Amino acid sequence: MKHHELQVKTTSRSQVVDITSKVQQVIYDIGLQNGIVIVYVPHTTAGVAVNENADPDVKIDFIRKMSDMVPVDSSYKHLEGNSDSHIKTILTNTSQTFFVENGKLMLGTWQGIYFCEYDGPRTRKCWIKCLEE
Amino acid sequence: MKHHELQVKTTSRSQVVDITSKVQQVIYDIGLQNGIVIVYVPHTTAGVAVNENADPDVKIDFIRKMSDMVPVDSSYKHLEGNSDSHIKTILTNTSQTFFVENGKLMLGTWQGIYFCEYDGPRTRKCWIKCLEE
Amino acid sequence: MKHHELQVKTTSRSQVVDITSKVQQVIYDIGLQNGIVIVYVPHTTAGVAVNENADPDVKIDFIRKMSDMVPVDSSYKHLEGNSDSHIKTILTNTSQTFFVENGKLMLGTWQGIYFCEYDGPRTRKCWIKCLEE
Repeated sequence: MKHHELQVKTTSRSQVVDITSKVQQVIYDIGLQNGIVIVYVPHTTAGVAVNENADPDVKIDFIRKMSDMVPVDSSYKHLEGNSDSHIKTILTNTSQTFFVENGKLMLGTWQGIYFCEYDGPRTRKCWIKCLEE
Repeated sequence: MKHHELQVKTTSRSQVVDITSKVQQVIYDIGLQNGIVIVYVPHTTAGVAVNENADPDVKIDFIRKMSDMVPVDSSYKHLEGNSDSHIKTILTNTSQTFFVENGKLMLGTWQGIYFCEYDGPRTRKCWIKCLEE
Repeated sequence: MKHHELQVKTTSRSQVVDITSKVQQVIYDIGLQNGIVIVYVPHTTAGVAVNENADPDVKIDFIRKMSDMVPVDSSYKHLEGNSDSHIKTILTNTSQTFFVENGKLMLGTWQGIYFCEYDGPRTRKCWIKCLEE
């Protein structure tokens, strides 16, 4: 009944880590055949998204654009210096839901699961829950 | 089978209201032990997000930055004067999914559930559905 | 157990297509009475959102503002010329979850389901899965 937990190590302040194969591994380990899997990030300065896992430049362009839109040096009230990280997390989202069929994570051809770090480097957690159909 | 409904009263045009304890209360009332809970906002100018519930300045910084990125005074076509509210709602999201274990809403240490008002003040609704594992 | 698939034809590079009635039709066809329905977009340059389906100007304002915030002509690294489309997709989201009660898709009065094309015109897919309560 308890969720499964992944560890994700990040090496920069802002970074996308592809966790697709880790999520697939949890589905195998649990033995879920058909249903949904929910990936949930229990942090307030990191989120989860879905996008291209082929060309790594897409991840770089995404992280750069997020930093352009929500720069670290704006005049924020929150004194920890990471208000930008909180805001980027909300824009990204805290969880993502996927379909599982015949034990396989159903993704589009080019899709991967992005763990999005906005206040690293840190060792982060990612929670995973499967619901059978 | 019917969803549960919360009322959320807002007092400004743009405002974050922490509804974490209200969602936990619904889980207690329903008696859900293990599964997921989905919080759904049936409005088009208010959404729901997950972020820090400790320092209230994070909520203020978020609301200010959203207003910077999507200002109310841009030259929109929609004549009701709240196109910015619709766009902020899409960027925030309309629903969020959470895990429930042993009757408890599973959140990260610093996480709270943000009801995000973008066209208040109003009395809003929030729908909640629980699915048992 | 397999998901249902919709086809969505788009006619511009950036465009919102209302797929609400198509999703409701899938629920009828499956015969789901009570539970949830998840709409999942298996692409990396198109997403799904929830917003107003009454005044079509809201869709136009949304698409224009997204193009303002994430312009196509920024200096991206990804060479396919559609980094803006990938970033807009992440900001929009890849899936949305809805409640179903007595065979009916539960939406707020003004809500519709937006298929958001950011790299069209194309023929796109949309996956739908229902989970009974």
